Amino acid sequence: MSDNLLSNINIPADLRLLDEAQLPQVAQELRNFIIDIVAVKEGHLGASLGVVELTIALHYVFDTPNDLLIWDVGHQAYGHKILTGRRENFHTNRQLGGISGFPKRSESIYDAFGVGHSSTSISAALGMAIASNLKGDFNKQHIAVIGDASIASGMAFEGLNHAGVTDANLLVILNDNAIGIDPSVGALKQYLTAVKEGKNPRQNNMIKSLNFDYSGPIDGHDIFAVIKELKRLQKIKGPKFLHIITTKGKGLQQAEDDQVKYHAPGKFDALTGEIHIKSEENLPPKYQDVFGFTVLDLAKSNEKIIGITPAMPSGSSLKFMMDAFPKRAFDVGIAEQHAVTLAAGMATQGMIVYCNIYSTFLQRAYDQIIHDVALQNLPVIFCLDRAGLVGEDGATHHGVFDLAYLRCIPKMIIHAPMNEIALQNILYTAQLGLNHPIAIRYPRGRGVIADWQTQHLGKYEKTAIGESVCLKEGSKVAVLSNGTIGNTVSLAISKIKHPENIAHYDFSFVKPLDKKALKDIFNTFKTIITIEGGTVKGGFGSAILEFASENNYASKITVLGIPDEFIEHGTVAELQQYCKIDVKSLEILFSSY
Amino acid sequence: MSDNLLSNINIPADLRLLDEAQLPQVAQELRNFIIDIVAVKEGHLGASLGVVELTIALHYVFDTPNDLLIWDVGHQAYGHKILTGRRENFHTNRQLGGISGFPKRSESIYDAFGVGHSSTSISAALGMAIASNLKGDFNKQHIAVIGDASIASGMAFEGLNHAGVTDANLLVILNDNAIGIDPSVGALKQYLTAVKEGKNPRQNNMIKSLNFDYSGPIDGHDIFAVIKELKRLQKIKGPKFLHIITTKGKGLQQAEDDQVKYHAPGKFDALTGEIHIKSEENLPPKYQDVFGFTVLDLAKSNEKIIGITPAMPSGSSLKFMMDAFPKRAFDVGIAEQHAVTLAAGMATQGMIVYCNIYSTFLQRAYDQIIHDVALQNLPVIFCLDRAGLVGEDGATHHGVFDLAYLRCIPKMIIHAPMNEIALQNILYTAQLGLNHPIAIRYPRGRGVIADWQTQHLGKYEKTAIGESVCLKEGSKVAVLSNGTIGNTVSLAISKIKHPENIAHYDFSFVKPLDKKALKDIFNTFKTIITIEGGTVKGGFGSAILEFASENNYASKITVLGIPDEFIEHGTVAELQQYCKIDVKSLEILFSSY
Repeated sequence: MSDNLLSNINIPADLRLLDEAQLPQVAQELRNFIIDIVAVKEGHLGASLGVVELTIALHYVFDTPNDLLIWDVGHQAYGHKILTGRRENFHTNRQLGGISGFPKRSESIYDAFGVGHSSTSISAALGMAIASNLKGDFNKQHIAVIGDASIASGMAFEGLNHAGVTDANLLVILNDNAIGIDPSVGALKQYLTAVKEGKNPRQNNMIKSLNFDYSGPIDGHDIFAVIKELKRLQKIKGPKFLHIITTKGKGLQQAEDDQVKYHAPGKFDALTGEIHIKSEENLPPKYQDVFGFTVLDLAKSNEKIIGITPAMPSGSSLKFMMDAFPKRAFDVGIAEQHAVTLAAGMATQGMIVYCNIYSTFLQRAYDQIIHDVALQNLPVIFCLDRAGLVGEDGATHHGVFDLAYLRCIPKMIIHAPMNEIALQNILYTAQLGLNHPIAIRYPRGRGVIADWQTQHLGKYEKTAIGESVCLKEGSKVAVLSNGTIGNTVSLAISKIKHPENIAHYDFSFVKPLDKKALKDIFNTFKTIITIEGGTVKGGFGSAILEFASENNYASKITVLGIPDEFIEHGTVAELQQYCKIDVKSLEILFSSY
Repeated sequence: MSDNLLSNINIPADLRLLDEAQLPQVAQELRNFIIDIVAVKEGHLGASLGVVELTIALHYVFDTPNDLLIWDVGHQAYGHKILTGRRENFHTNRQLGGISGFPKRSESIYDAFGVGHSSTSISAALGMAIASNLKGDFNKQHIAVIGDASIASGMAFEGLNHAGVTDANLLVILNDNAIGIDPSVGALKQYLTAVKEGKNPRQNNMIKSLNFDYSGPIDGHDIFAVIKELKRLQKIKGPKFLHIITTKGKGLQQAEDDQVKYHAPGKFDALTGEIHIKSEENLPPKYQDVFGFTVLDLAKSNEKIIGITPAMPSGSSLKFMMDAFPKRAFDVGIAEQHAVTLAAGMATQGMIVYCNIYSTFLQRAYDQIIHDVALQNLPVIFCLDRAGLVGEDGATHHGVFDLAYLRCIPKMIIHAPMNEIALQNILYTAQLGLNHPIAIRYPRGRGVIADWQTQHLGKYEKTAIGESVCLKEGSKVAVLSNGTIGNTVSLAISKIKHPENIAHYDFSFVKPLDKKALKDIFNTFKTIITIEGGTVKGGFGSAILEFASENNYASKITVLGIPDEFIEHGTVAELQQYCKIDVKSLEILFSSY
């Protein structure tokens, strides 16, 4: 058995000392290293396994970090991290204080651009390449590695369209594995598949039409072929495009066979690939499943109901409806802008559209919400999954700005249900007709009602729009909570010595506000605390401050939520503690009155 | 001389009663009608002149409003409006209470979708087409007319990519005139030009690669050819794409010769086309020119300065720098997402990037500001032209949300200069290095300092970041203004009987706030008024409310700005009056203390 090569590679320069013939061994070791650690520490698996050979080839051929390498999205960058000085720390991946699950500029000079959201790499690399030209550095290469799901997003097209009229030293590598998190969709995917199958003659090449020097498709797991082609491309100036074919999950049979599950499988057996199944018995449901089951149930009795997800059928659980009603539920790919305006178009024809987009990704469709939906007052139902702190995915993925960025839009209803029953009830109420667009935000992870699916699913009650609920009366302080953080508030109140001091109201509607209840509250309490899962700048708390100002109330208002900084990765519990909105922090605060 | 045909066409059904042979006469009359009214009443000219034949052909062949017709952006829809019941009202175009300059659902059943921002038409039409299929209406046609500048935007690609895998009755008509507001750019434009010149064989067709039934290019001014092709396409199911070639400004020689100027020429002579030149002597400069001249001046002495505009070189006046430094100033086309991340990529390499985007269009790049710029704390300089109320363009174009949607983003500096000198000084200061991204917002139209260009341009002073300025002391009330509305405040104070009552502070920084000054102000004044050019939900006023809450100040705060509703079109003065932020309204308010 040969020596372990990987353990001697601390930076890519070490890799470049090896003979090309040794690289397949490095690939094997790197693959095993990733599997061994992710099996125990969890994280994104399949994407990084698929680009092991490409990762090694890139760092072997190019002069990183002088040549600049950008990984689109970044799920696939574990091998890159391990080869660029983070092998020893890789076991801290995605943990509080550990390395990030995504490339990050502040973490390493080898991470040329921070990523997380998709389809940014071409624009960023082009910017760098243009800058290099302006600085007179005409030999530097600028490389964007982008998947076939990400390249179908509009932003990537914008980048290609610009790059094609420049002389920038840009190399776009299309890592074509026909899957993002879920299988890729769309006409471009069909086109690429045809190219792979030799059905499109090379001269009929879309990428060439955009002035790129196109090469491929080649086998991305043939490390010698990849190196040979990269060396050829290295010498070519201007925009270049290499199309490689890879298999997501390559090297772990079960990950190859079930690519969706092994995108981020949780803990698994490193040898067999078997996923360690956690018992889900007696656990409350995931909020995404409350959405998925409820919309499926509602769709059965209402033909006008339509579901839309941009590339998250599994993550949103819209898949349930897609399986049952394939003509009425759509995965439109990574195309948030299109998803929202498509929903608007459908709504003009009387359809009831549930447009499910993670809070952080709805930022991609902000103009479409304002210009195509709200301005025309179309009753699209936006379902914002992963709202609030999301945990280990970190700063790129926290959904903490939505309340602030939506609240300034006229005509929007904004609702954050406190639990599973409230979520299903607002989903039910929305399809009865609200005459306004609505945004319903709910968090990643599980709720609080273990028997929701057996005892509550389908037992709908109409939600009164704009009404708050008094959960608990109290004498000294009124706590106004928005969304599921209300459960944390309830728990904290139950733990203090004098719970009778604290009144608790569920203000699930950020817009419209329950002005009647607020008047009573402000007339009763001199001290008011607001708490929310979003930023304290411009969110629910600010709405209460605005109300107090408009109505000349002088009660002292304390606004709790996410502070005005980017929150790093860690468990949700750790991050809530950091933001002082965990049970213990609230207990201390409530005890102080 | 024949009878006037146009005056008898009140709805498209009237048009369909005519013989095809009469349509060229209708075209001539429609063109003259548009010219005659726009010459006097102002508005967008060139785009509508270019699609006169297409407009007539569409309404002649298709069964509007049952068939659904969407005009992308909508600058070109004047002919459509005139043929669909708004001929008599057309002279009220863009005036307060008159018809909108853009298609608008609430105005007419013939306006299938409200537009204003570009590249939405394919997504919206596809949504309608899918809805029709679900409703069992398989004969209805859904038509998106989109220009070659708009189709290059990522959102349009997302729509095409989805449509290509559906059986939706979607007809996309590419109105290819090689110009948006400024000439089109990018690789796709080059490709389309090659197609037009017969250099690309039809089989190498990018659109066909996306599964569309492609036809064209045909002459869009040959009304018989267009009608013939539309009749053929009408019978074909599924996604179809018709490429027509037109000339912007067709039929008015000067508009054809200078297409940029005649996009919206102001008043002109209907017979000669001669534009009525208003004397600009002694007028203060346009804010866009303050940007344009200042950045040009700064770029002369700093090689690292780069300018970026998404398709607004003329409107932003970045054109000045583009002419002088063509390698360092970029029009990237209608690609706001790409523009921002391109800027971020350049900033990682130490370039100083002025990324100029109209406030309303920056909504298109919201995620990129958060995820690619602010999260990495890259010091990109965002210049938000057309911030605040923009006047006649109306609800789609007012830039009133920026303070709210930017304020929640950590690490952003947000500045609104009060006048031309302040604008040039912050532009100067930004390139000295702020270590943070900054957004500088300024309005459409002219400033207040007539001799700015001759007396002040180039005489830079460093702006103290986060500092406010006391413009006037006073005894009873402190008015805190943000941006150019401060000039309105000054004027109003000067007109009241007891100006000594009112103190006035220029809070040009919304973030970071001048906390030191605020403490003094709150300790001094029991009554505070904030005033801004943005929405009262979450903007500058809310920032002051948050400050007061955090610091336990109990002064009465009144927040003035744009109310929580979509503001229609009218002159800026009329709209300010509606929002009660005009001189007269402030005079009355200030007098009441």
